[in-house]
Amino acid sequence: MRTGTSSSFDSLYAEVQQFYADHMHLLDAGDGEGWARTFTEDGSFAPPSLPEPVVGRAALAEGVDKAAAALAEAGEVHRHLLGMVSVRPGEDGSLSVRSYAQIIATARGGSPRLHLMCVCDDVLVRVDGELKVRERRVTRDDRRP
Amino acid sequence: MRTGTSSSFDSLYAEVQQFYADHMHLLDAGDGEGWARTFTEDGSFAPPSLPEPVVGRAALAEGVDKAAAALAEAGEVHRHLLGMVSVRPGEDGSLSVRSYAQIIATARGGSPRLHLMCVCDDVLVRVDGELKVRERRVTRDDRRP
Amino acid sequence: MRTGTSSSFDSLYAEVQQFYADHMHLLDAGDGEGWARTFTEDGSFAPPSLPEPVVGRAALAEGVDKAAAALAEAGEVHRHLLGMVSVRPGEDGSLSVRSYAQIIATARGGSPRLHLMCVCDDVLVRVDGELKVRERRVTRDDRRP
Repeated sequence: MRTGTSSSFDSLYAEVQQFYADHMHLLDAGDGEGWARTFTEDGSFAPPSLPEPVVGRAALAEGVDKAAAALAEAGEVHRHLLGMVSVRPGEDGSLSVRSYAQIIATARGGSPRLHLMCVCDDVLVRVDGELKVRERRVTRDDRRP
Repeated sequence: MRTGTSSSFDSLYAEVQQFYADHMHLLDAGDGEGWARTFTEDGSFAPPSLPEPVVGRAALAEGVDKAAAALAEAGEVHRHLLGMVSVRPGEDGSLSVRSYAQIIATARGGSPRLHLMCVCDDVLVRVDGELKVRERRVTRDDRRP
Repeated sequence: MRTGTSSSFDSLYAEVQQFYADHMHLLDAGDGEGWARTFTEDGSFAPPSLPEPVVGRAALAEGVDKAAAALAEAGEVHRHLLGMVSVRPGEDGSLSVRSYAQIIATARGGSPRLHLMCVCDDVLVRVDGELKVRERRVTRDDRRP
């Protein structure tokens, strides 16, 4: 059986990749508000560094703004790169997406280093035709049990 | 002349990317049997670390299971990320795919490190509608002549 | 509103990814002439390491050939990996493409290392049906102001 190869899957796969590219460009540019708008209004993000998920656009934006200020203070740039993106369309129209996330840090005048290696599990939904993250769970490889 | 841009190429390209994502998730999860099923029954894998290719699903699965046990023992996680994936459809319906493979290793509590940088040359074929690896040759950048 | 999801965007996105894969394989193989042909005849490349952009295929090819000779002399292999590729079709048919570029260096017998982390801003145009780079600007994360 051939799965995931209808023309709609192709469209979806390209759209998901474009979505993540823009999503990460916003994040790494420190544009908290722009980044938060790529989540649903009640979108949640469970990062590995916090005990509770961050919920809602205001809290999501604030987290990015604070991180961006800390990075600017430290003279460091972070880049988030997703790879090996696997897209599973659900019956309710949502998409379960698993990917690997490399976070690369570069200090001004320094060499880039692989800061964190993570697995990113997202649920994407379509709101007014646009993909949004409804839920994100990230696990760090260095903290696997 | 425009090549590789028919709608069938687009479908193919998305399908190949999805295939590799799932393929590497199985590998890195240590699911030897699941991973071996993404090869043809007589699929062969010529890794840089062995003098002879590994041939057939039983041997392929065994190799992954052993590697996964060794990694678990060492408290380390490996991730295989393919990038710069170039797909060449052949006249017989097979696909020649060249990609770059980063292997990233993370020890429990440690920093991730780029373990190996390789070039991966695959021949993919379709079996009952699904893509399978018929042949894989991997070369390591640190061992180039 | 749904943007960037027409079937032509899907085709374009796959084509751009395939284009970059081949483009970087030529570069990393040290094929200066082949690589230069993936630029327009008057294509320009503003690398971070030079005060002026390199313009035209002869100069572009020469730059690669020299770099390849230096790498061979040093016994080192470089790989260029683009990720998080965002494609913006312009009204004039050109494509503005922003991506992250990892440059990975591996010495013979050594461990791979992340040499540079960059942002790559390209303008791609179609010449006789094939994508070509008309303009490239690359910025290094370690030299951000």
